[in-house]
Amino acid sequence: MISEELLEPSIQNIGRTLAEHSKTGTANILSQRWWNDLLMDWGMRDEDFKVQLFRFVDVLPTLKTDEQFTRLLAEYFGGTPILPQPLKWSLQRLPSSWVGSHVGAIVLRRQFMRMAHTFMAGDSMANAMPVLGKLWRSGRCASVDLLGEATVSEAEADSYRDHCLDALRVYHEHAQRWPNRPLLEQDHHGLLPRANLSIKISALYSQLDPADPEGSFHGVAAKLRPILDLASQLPASITFDMEQFELKDLTYEIFMRILSEPAYRTYACAGIALQTYLRDADITLDRMVDWVQQRDTPITIRLVKGAYWDAENIQNEQRGWPVPVLRQKPETDANFEYITGKLLAQPTLFRPAFGTHNLRSLAHAEALAQANGFAPDNYEYQSLYGMADGLQHAVVKYGRRVRVYTPVGELIPGMAYLVRRLLENTSNESFISKQRDHETPIEVLLAPPYASHNSIQDERVPTTDIHQSFKNEAHTDFSREPARQAMMQALEQVKGQLGQTVHFPIPSSIGRLKDELVSTNPCRPHEIIARMPCYAPAEIEPVIQSAHEIWKQWRTTTADTRADYLCRVAELMRNRRHELAAWEIFETGKPWREADGDIAEAIDFLEFYAREMRLLGRPQRLGQEPGELNHLEWRPRGLAVVISPWNFSLAIPTGMVSSALVTGNAVLFKPSERSPMMGYHLYQLFREAGLPEGVLHFIPGGPEIGKALVAHPQIHVIAFTGSKEAGLHIIQQASKVQPGQHHVTHAIAEMGGKNAIIIDDTADLDEAVQGVLYSFTGYQGQKCSACSRVIVLDSIHEDFIERLTQAASSLHIGPPEDPSHHMGPMIDERALQKVREYVGIAHQEGKVLLDQVMEREGWFQGPVIVGEIKPHHRLAQEEIFGPVIAVLRADSFEHALTMAMQSDFALTGGIYSRSPTNIQHARESFDVGNFYINRPITGSLVGRQPFGGHRLSGVGTKAGGERYLEQFMVQRVTSENTMRRGFAPTQ
Amino acid sequence: MISEELLEPSIQNIGRTLAEHSKTGTANILSQRWWNDLLMDWGMRDEDFKVQLFRFVDVLPTLKTDEQFTRLLAEYFGGTPILPQPLKWSLQRLPSSWVGSHVGAIVLRRQFMRMAHTFMAGDSMANAMPVLGKLWRSGRCASVDLLGEATVSEAEADSYRDHCLDALRVYHEHAQRWPNRPLLEQDHHGLLPRANLSIKISALYSQLDPADPEGSFHGVAAKLRPILDLASQLPASITFDMEQFELKDLTYEIFMRILSEPAYRTYACAGIALQTYLRDADITLDRMVDWVQQRDTPITIRLVKGAYWDAENIQNEQRGWPVPVLRQKPETDANFEYITGKLLAQPTLFRPAFGTHNLRSLAHAEALAQANGFAPDNYEYQSLYGMADGLQHAVVKYGRRVRVYTPVGELIPGMAYLVRRLLENTSNESFISKQRDHETPIEVLLAPPYASHNSIQDERVPTTDIHQSFKNEAHTDFSREPARQAMMQALEQVKGQLGQTVHFPIPSSIGRLKDELVSTNPCRPHEIIARMPCYAPAEIEPVIQSAHEIWKQWRTTTADTRADYLCRVAELMRNRRHELAAWEIFETGKPWREADGDIAEAIDFLEFYAREMRLLGRPQRLGQEPGELNHLEWRPRGLAVVISPWNFSLAIPTGMVSSALVTGNAVLFKPSERSPMMGYHLYQLFREAGLPEGVLHFIPGGPEIGKALVAHPQIHVIAFTGSKEAGLHIIQQASKVQPGQHHVTHAIAEMGGKNAIIIDDTADLDEAVQGVLYSFTGYQGQKCSACSRVIVLDSIHEDFIERLTQAASSLHIGPPEDPSHHMGPMIDERALQKVREYVGIAHQEGKVLLDQVMEREGWFQGPVIVGEIKPHHRLAQEEIFGPVIAVLRADSFEHALTMAMQSDFALTGGIYSRSPTNIQHARESFDVGNFYINRPITGSLVGRQPFGGHRLSGVGTKAGGERYLEQFMVQRVTSENTMRRGFAPTQ
Repeated sequence: MISEELLEPSIQNIGRTLAEHSKTGTANILSQRWWNDLLMDWGMRDEDFKVQLFRFVDVLPTLKTDEQFTRLLAEYFGGTPILPQPLKWSLQRLPSSWVGSHVGAIVLRRQFMRMAHTFMAGDSMANAMPVLGKLWRSGRCASVDLLGEATVSEAEADSYRDHCLDALRVYHEHAQRWPNRPLLEQDHHGLLPRANLSIKISALYSQLDPADPEGSFHGVAAKLRPILDLASQLPASITFDMEQFELKDLTYEIFMRILSEPAYRTYACAGIALQTYLRDADITLDRMVDWVQQRDTPITIRLVKGAYWDAENIQNEQRGWPVPVLRQKPETDANFEYITGKLLAQPTLFRPAFGTHNLRSLAHAEALAQANGFAPDNYEYQSLYGMADGLQHAVVKYGRRVRVYTPVGELIPGMAYLVRRLLENTSNESFISKQRDHETPIEVLLAPPYASHNSIQDERVPTTDIHQSFKNEAHTDFSREPARQAMMQALEQVKGQLGQTVHFPIPSSIGRLKDELVSTNPCRPHEIIARMPCYAPAEIEPVIQSAHEIWKQWRTTTADTRADYLCRVAELMRNRRHELAAWEIFETGKPWREADGDIAEAIDFLEFYAREMRLLGRPQRLGQEPGELNHLEWRPRGLAVVISPWNFSLAIPTGMVSSALVTGNAVLFKPSERSPMMGYHLYQLFREAGLPEGVLHFIPGGPEIGKALVAHPQIHVIAFTGSKEAGLHIIQQASKVQPGQHHVTHAIAEMGGKNAIIIDDTADLDEAVQGVLYSFTGYQGQKCSACSRVIVLDSIHEDFIERLTQAASSLHIGPPEDPSHHMGPMIDERALQKVREYVGIAHQEGKVLLDQVMEREGWFQGPVIVGEIKPHHRLAQEEIFGPVIAVLRADSFEHALTMAMQSDFALTGGIYSRSPTNIQHARESFDVGNFYINRPITGSLVGRQPFGGHRLSGVGTKAGGERYLEQFMVQRVTSENTMRRGFAPTQ
Repeated sequence: MISEELLEPSIQNIGRTLAEHSKTGTANILSQRWWNDLLMDWGMRDEDFKVQLFRFVDVLPTLKTDEQFTRLLAEYFGGTPILPQPLKWSLQRLPSSWVGSHVGAIVLRRQFMRMAHTFMAGDSMANAMPVLGKLWRSGRCASVDLLGEATVSEAEADSYRDHCLDALRVYHEHAQRWPNRPLLEQDHHGLLPRANLSIKISALYSQLDPADPEGSFHGVAAKLRPILDLASQLPASITFDMEQFELKDLTYEIFMRILSEPAYRTYACAGIALQTYLRDADITLDRMVDWVQQRDTPITIRLVKGAYWDAENIQNEQRGWPVPVLRQKPETDANFEYITGKLLAQPTLFRPAFGTHNLRSLAHAEALAQANGFAPDNYEYQSLYGMADGLQHAVVKYGRRVRVYTPVGELIPGMAYLVRRLLENTSNESFISKQRDHETPIEVLLAPPYASHNSIQDERVPTTDIHQSFKNEAHTDFSREPARQAMMQALEQVKGQLGQTVHFPIPSSIGRLKDELVSTNPCRPHEIIARMPCYAPAEIEPVIQSAHEIWKQWRTTTADTRADYLCRVAELMRNRRHELAAWEIFETGKPWREADGDIAEAIDFLEFYAREMRLLGRPQRLGQEPGELNHLEWRPRGLAVVISPWNFSLAIPTGMVSSALVTGNAVLFKPSERSPMMGYHLYQLFREAGLPEGVLHFIPGGPEIGKALVAHPQIHVIAFTGSKEAGLHIIQQASKVQPGQHHVTHAIAEMGGKNAIIIDDTADLDEAVQGVLYSFTGYQGQKCSACSRVIVLDSIHEDFIERLTQAASSLHIGPPEDPSHHMGPMIDERALQKVREYVGIAHQEGKVLLDQVMEREGWFQGPVIVGEIKPHHRLAQEEIFGPVIAVLRADSFEHALTMAMQSDFALTGGIYSRSPTNIQHARESFDVGNFYINRPITGSLVGRQPFGGHRLSGVGTKAGGERYLEQFMVQRVTSENTMRRGFAPTQ
């Protein structure tokens, strides 16, 4: 290889030549480019305005009327204090003041809509062909990208496949008639077909899941083979686009595996993108080198920088995962140059394509190619349609092949594409925006990356707020092979331990417990998870007396000591994370991610409550007056009863048990009889962590044990999560002060929900369908937070229901130890029966749009969607606790809100909307404990989304929130007069 | 007058001469002075150590055994990390390691005890006379101060009077035999008697109260006349000492009034102290000039700087009153020089005495006297016994009269006196400590005040904690004449308004209320306070429906708007403070200060809750992750019922009503039928403040109205303060979810107490007796926080009981509009009957030591003290709600603690102790809501001492605390996914 330093003069020469050729005139107000430039200028002025502007562009195509457009315009910009100068200036040229003005609005709307078209060649392949032909004639070939909505169902995946096939045919047929352009049709490996399609694997399979590479391969491959067959036959080129990092390994796996199949092994027109903003781009390329050598047919590598930088940062930070992209733009540029070198070093394996608008990156690639003696047709440059036209022309003029990545499709996905391009063009770090800024000198534009970059800064500002430094335990990233392996091994290991009988300490006065509890696998009811002795009501008394004795010691321990036990349990859970998840998968039928999330949440509860208790454990001084010291302290109540459910069989009991313990109470813990083994694990972990014997009592048993515990006069606090009926009973029972009782028992009860999501007419349907689907089918709908009502505005009702029903029917259902199953069984026969009963009612009350009955062993039930439900229907009022959703149709947003709140429950709720006013309105008025905007309504995180409801959904403060622990304690204020003999210490 | 500048050379000369004469040798280890010096050295090293040391000195005389001494020594110094160097050095000279060593302890104890004697002339007048004679022979006369414990009863006041009479006789008799010393016996006004006594008016009358100057005058005068009679006859001099500022005006008033009586008008040997640390010393002197001119007999003015500087700062800051003393030491010195000048300007009126150890102040006075041509016997210098011996000698040598202020008395008050002197000698600003520090050059010691003082700093550090800047509304300072006048006027004015019928809005559907409520004066049951219509249970429904309708609007108001209403009501209350207090005095029989405190507390609640709501009204962001915005908000529950008691007839309903309103609930307010007029005032104030009509409903009525409100299914939250029985009923009622009810009613109940104070054997009995007395008789014991049990350690049981009984029987009882009455009536006949019943039970269970039955109109009952009570007795278990205290005897501190907690209640509790270990033990173990150390257990302040108990004393968080408002709301978390199209605004 040539040394980079020797290359530099050549880069500068090439760059200056290309820059000279790139110059174009200023757009005038009548051209679309003037509008685009204007929009980008606005976007670059002010970050807040840019957000509003691009969000407005995003929602634009769903606005069906001018009235709607005018309303949304006001919603987005009505509150903008200062309009940017160009906008003001342009307003003077509009017929009248445009905000609120109908004529102005229409003009503006048309301009916004047209804008999308400057980045798209047409709404269909047929309409796009003339544009592609024009490109060809101007010396540029293309690769077509069929824009579409997100694929949420197999129907949609089929449709995308068919679109691809159609597109290839149309493309090939039309392109036949184009004149010869040797540079565009041939390289050192031979023919370059005129038809070239870029595809996204996420569009080919609705159940794509990196946690399930095998299933995902089969799903994608089934759709891909006809496309590859056609491409081989025509011929045509197929390039795999790269999407989010989470799909990267999977995409490469599928690419390699399918192209290794005999039918496609010699297909030389396949390509794949490589993103240099990824830290591991280098390793990925090495892997491709090995594979192509083995396969022995070249592939195209489309070297790009990557288009998901913001999303990768946001999503990975949200999840607590390592951010896979380079944080600084110059790092990506440098990486691009480095990979360029590696790519050009393998001319026999690759057909290199450099996808960049960065003059420096392009000049560098060109200089390197020339230095290595490549012929001009051995490589190509790729550019985006409608962008950097000057540069495209310059490269053509320079005698190199330019391929234009050309989107074709409808307006809605087109606007989404537009937003991505606008973002790219207005980013402060963007090369394009620098180029547009005519004041940037050519030296700066052509400077080697890093020369303009003095130091790598960590953009995360350290926070001083002690609460803010709590970090959630990250969920496992099952797109990583080692994580999948670990989970598989844990499942294997736990499988070998099923069916045993476990024992636990009981007060010696009891002797031994006579009753037995048997836990079974809801997938295979004959499979025994574990057996264990259990309590009868008459055996409760000695346990309570024992706990009471031990409490006298326990309450004197310090908050820090108690918090330490929690942290130790958290550490143990972390070490046995997959094992615990495996037990949960077998005992309660949870899919991988749900089980994994439950263990993570348990760890979160432990660490969050430990942290909170350390804070609450410090007496808080009140007042600053001299001569007196007032301190507020928190003290334990006494004996706590914890009655936990089976649906978050580790997290919920961990939260309740740990908070009762860390606040200094002795705890009597009754796990659900449907998940006793998970309860046992929790108990064992506390023992292992060294918690003094007897401070926590494990009390497996049936509902009668819960009743006995709750009724006991020596209980100070009851923490319950479960059904409304049981919760209300406990609340009432607790309020009775029995003879000889010296306190009022405090009851904390988290009960049910009948949670609704509103879909308004500005919703992003891709997100709404997926969000509702997950919210009502996640863990088979067996979450109190699950969505069981969706309220859809009339105008989008049909579209939404159709997509939702197709998406739901695409879900894979089966034993959850297999990661290809996104839904497992119901917890038991009773739960399944309840769903079946409500399906019966549904047939009377509304229209059952989907009822996926499963004819197999185990308590399986597929999604149920019931249309035409009215608010007073039982389907809209009663908690079913299964994958059943009632669809309500709303005339207006107000109507939707009213229906949403027609419920005794107030737990979770949500809205999908892009109307700032509707979002704000719902934010203020949708009366639930946890309200979610444009996201699923389950999966609240400790600390970030403290969880709990009111009305009949619960009493008590939110779990995983700052106030939760306080419920297990009483407040005590100590006031000391520190003045003696007329003097007091300074405080 | 001579100009100060011309005087300066003379001051310097005199000062240097005196300094030269003052020099004394270094003390050796065998002398007591060596020990004193050592102790002062220690005290000056480290502030924390000094506090421990002086506190230890304070408690010393109560330690009866060496074991006790050794134990306390370890408690005070066991945890001291570094012993000061001189202490270590001295330890090497002791027989063995003294800490924990018995021999060492005995030596040390003796030394500490002896130390007090270096500042006292003897434990009795007879023993002091030889010392006084020795002083006389060395050229110094004296003024004797009879040290004694605080006067808490009339028996003690009588005893002090008798001591004074005895002392004068003994003094006079012995002094007859002394040789002639013309300088000491004569000045320009004539004879100076050899016998000279300093007296404190607070010791002469146990019910001294600046709010009641008339009663105080008569109380003091009755004791003072025999003393003045004897002094005139012997003759002897009497000087009034000055104590706290609060008593200053009263002391001067009494001084002038009694000495204006014909019998004493020509008595020329009276004197009074004037404190130059007071900002108003100048004005006070002017007043004396006028008065003496009028009286036409000279008086002695003892000019001092003032000995209560720390206490004045602490107590006035605690109360939120202006601090009356100059904040900077040099200001006081300058003021001393200024007043010196004014004093010397009136030789015909005054016999000036300069009480100072400050060389500069003394030299200045001397220079000025000389410059004004005073003869040496025309003025004198005063010094403290045992201090500044060198200076005393120097002044004698200089040929001036020195009078030594000489304490005579027992060890316990002697130690208290010692601590004051130690403090004075070790203060960083003290002249004495500067003089002791031999490195301070004479120029500095003699510099004019302010020369060494560069800037006046405000010692209050500004705080950044928003909670800390809440300031309690100051109670009225009734030692101020204008405040007394205002209160008198308000009483007059309200008296004129009694007996009227008031009206208030009711829902139109009711028409008019048929029933009537009549409020009467508990002092004069025939006197009608007010009449008003009241509700019957059947009339509740329309009110609830009306409130429900209005709530829909009210809940949408902002937190700030709602908080503004509270602040407006606070402002109205502030403006009508005395008027409201007057109504409360008439309607509920509260003494002045109790009524005034109640209005102040009401204002506090309003402002505190307004402030808290402004904070809670701001959504709290949770988590910092990009792409999501989580906010925690607080929302109103709905309809709130407030059922308030009569014993804090403005503060408690204000607290409950304002918190329910400010949190956005509509409120149904039922005041106690025993104080409906105060409830009406509160309601009217909210109307005046502009609260929208109907948001607050005033619902006077009997208990059946409370029951109807509580049982209604549309009530969301009930705030109740009252009896345990009613509270438990409400809690149980609230827990029932009735058919058609969509929520669980939340109940907040503050109930009763059976509050105990422990008096351990290290207690300061002066404080303990007064603290217990106030805690059980304040507002006739009709506070839930009132003390109703006192648990006294065996060894001090008799002393304590005797003093408490005498103190209690000294209290003045009668209609509380007269400020001389410290106890008013019981609220009604039922309350009085209850006390009488328990007195009957007391006679069976224990020994009734005091039962002050009042034979007069009204529901009066004096204090009841019952000894020999055991923990199981009804007197120790049941809430009586009257001025009845059960005395329990404890074998040990542990025993005391155990008995203290043998109660179903856990509201307030207290301890009087000077044992750090016992204080700490009780702080940790005494399980009550509000625990008080070395102070009364009533009178908690909003913000500083949030109030409330647990067990059967209450459910809910503390009133006046940060968590209180949250009970009236539910938590809501909103989670917005802010990422759209792969980008999100930075947050």
